[in-house]
Amino acid sequence: MKKFEEKTIQTEQIYNGKVIHLQVDEVTLPNGKTSKREIIKHQGAVAVIPITQDNKIVFVEQYRKPLEKSIVEIPAGKLEPGEIPEVTAIRELEEETGYTTNELKFVTSFYTSPGFADEIMHIYMSDKLKPMEKKAALDDDEFIEILELTLDEAEKYMKENRIHDAKTNYAILYLKTLEMM
Amino acid sequence: MKKFEEKTIQTEQIYNGKVIHLQVDEVTLPNGKTSKREIIKHQGAVAVIPITQDNKIVFVEQYRKPLEKSIVEIPAGKLEPGEIPEVTAIRELEEETGYTTNELKFVTSFYTSPGFADEIMHIYMSDKLKPMEKKAALDDDEFIEILELTLDEAEKYMKENRIHDAKTNYAILYLKTLEMM
Repeated sequence: MKKFEEKTIQTEQIYNGKVIHLQVDEVTLPNGKTSKREIIKHQGAVAVIPITQDNKIVFVEQYRKPLEKSIVEIPAGKLEPGEIPEVTAIRELEEETGYTTNELKFVTSFYTSPGFADEIMHIYMSDKLKPMEKKAALDDDEFIEILELTLDEAEKYMKENRIHDAKTNYAILYLKTLEMM
Repeated sequence: MKKFEEKTIQTEQIYNGKVIHLQVDEVTLPNGKTSKREIIKHQGAVAVIPITQDNKIVFVEQYRKPLEKSIVEIPAGKLEPGEIPEVTAIRELEEETGYTTNELKFVTSFYTSPGFADEIMHIYMSDKLKPMEKKAALDDDEFIEILELTLDEAEKYMKENRIHDAKTNYAILYLKTLEMM
């Protein structure tokens, strides 16, 4: 849908980083006036809700510099250019948790912050996990701790704001709906 | 929690915009090595799930320049500095939908993209809406259309990716759980 389309007059490239790219677009508004839009370009991300055989959810705790604290999240990582999300999902699951799977179920996808970023998050679930014989290597700037929690424990973490991000809050609500069915 | 803390060595200010601020922090990792973190600072946002007396959900459709398309979302807006989220919630509800309320229920809050941004999203619900006598004014660069949908219709929009962002997907899943209770 192109309703209320804002046409680009010109684009100013501000920053080209490892994770994000920032540009500022000057646009024509539907009323003919102009405005500026600050836009973060991101290659997209994939998360997995990993459920063990004894019905626990596998989370990772990691320090998030923008928040200046560590939070507990479902495993996730960035899409590589041209990569299909299922491949990212399995790679991040293997690297971050030591489990692998050959069964992924698509749960949802959403733009994380459409007002200023094009980042899309794809979420999958797997309840067919297999422990890997040899754990895959993390990126060299990643430090994480693995936690296996029941859904009740995860909800408690959410109340305490130790679980506190869009994909993980969504995952917990999603598992609640499965439990209610 | 400060587990795996990354201490700042120095901060480079890159861009200071109307909506976002970009800085790059050089940090010390837990293993003593250094790395860079690209960080978006954002003042935070608030969304409302507005439910009418005849049990419809009030959405707004607007063009999202980062996506180069218009999507359908629950009403939302940025926190002003020092503002409590309930005030933002009512202002955005009034400006965007023409309804007001004096009953808000807190639903959840989450960081939208904790890997690179500190933006937090607070979500409220109100099923005690009153039409305003005189509709509040939108910001002068905002163009929106109001839609009142049943939950079934909203789910159909989600399948078609016309509803496709974190807060709105969460809201629909949340309303599903209320329906299941």
